[in-house]
Amino acid sequence: MRAVFQQELSEVQSRLVELAGGARTIMQKASGAFLNSDVSMADEALALADSHEEKALDLDELVIKILATQSPVAKDLRIVVSALRMSASLERMGSLASHIAAIARYRYPGTAIPDALRGTFEEMSKLDVELADKAVELLKNTDLNLAREIQAQDEAVDLLHRRVFDTVLAPDWSENAMFTVDVTLASRYFERFADHVVDISAKVSFLQTGEW
Amino acid sequence: MRAVFQQELSEVQSRLVELAGGARTIMQKASGAFLNSDVSMADEALALADSHEEKALDLDELVIKILATQSPVAKDLRIVVSALRMSASLERMGSLASHIAAIARYRYPGTAIPDALRGTFEEMSKLDVELADKAVELLKNTDLNLAREIQAQDEAVDLLHRRVFDTVLAPDWSENAMFTVDVTLASRYFERFADHVVDISAKVSFLQTGEW
Repeated sequence: MRAVFQQELSEVQSRLVELAGGARTIMQKASGAFLNSDVSMADEALALADSHEEKALDLDELVIKILATQSPVAKDLRIVVSALRMSASLERMGSLASHIAAIARYRYPGTAIPDALRGTFEEMSKLDVELADKAVELLKNTDLNLAREIQAQDEAVDLLHRRVFDTVLAPDWSENAMFTVDVTLASRYFERFADHVVDISAKVSFLQTGEW
Repeated sequence: MRAVFQQELSEVQSRLVELAGGARTIMQKASGAFLNSDVSMADEALALADSHEEKALDLDELVIKILATQSPVAKDLRIVVSALRMSASLERMGSLASHIAAIARYRYPGTAIPDALRGTFEEMSKLDVELADKAVELLKNTDLNLAREIQAQDEAVDLLHRRVFDTVLAPDWSENAMFTVDVTLASRYFERFADHVVDISAKVSFLQTGEW
């Protein structure tokens, strides 16, 4: 039984790694679409987000099967329950990235990004893709140094999120309401994407150390 | 064992009902604060949201204890796993409502709502509070008629959400960027709050009928 359980746990782990990789790819394409008004990249992101959601549901079914057949307890049980929550976060990350792709699609052939915020969104999307990369690594290797890097990088995303508001609310902001709406929502999606990586890293840290 | 399990399940159920009631109260206070620029109501909503989050975490611990000690299978297992997900939705609902309270607090003593959108937000907050009421009822009685009503009411919230964008993007919108940002985010929070009630009702329906 124990060997089967270990095998199933490692299957869960590899599916979490795959989902994190999926969220990364969706964010990479979505932010590419958003930064470059690239509608075909937006469509790729949207299509990937659909199958991403299905993969997350499949993982949940596997976890339920493991709970039913192995009845794990103690740390094993916490690992399995955490997998459910991480799967939910990874699913949301795909969905948030797809919202960014949808904004790009909606504004095509125009851009959703006014010049004053281009640099800010370039940084934000770079950080989000890197955060997703770190989620992949963390789920592979449970290296707790990565958890600390993720925390710091999320704070950088929060600062950029605030910079978007500062820019939009400054007296010299002269863009129309459409730009204001687009950048407000996009910034929120980038920020929530990063939050989910932090949630995932908190769960991995907890499983390793027993401390929140 | 079975009697203990039933007792624990009914404890989970009553805690879910309590959490749904909590989310309702937070949304009621938050939208009251938002509609009436009432800073003390905003503070109440923010304080309640903190303890709401703790209650959701406590429920998760109870669920993990049940999984560890009762090793439920089949439908019982699905009920317990669904409780984890519903708890996550109910926690998010409290958090989304608290973001609305935070906007009201931030703009005090001014208002965050321009006249052109007052009626729309009044409707949205009424619908969201009613949706949370229905979540309470549904978790108490698993009446599937309620699930259908929830679906219809969520569609009404989506229409209002779109109306906010239509208003903001219309040529005669002349409010400043601060109003545009506030109403964009608030509308998104109201809409996501309603989505979570739909997610909860989908889970309750699935447990009753086996169909998504």
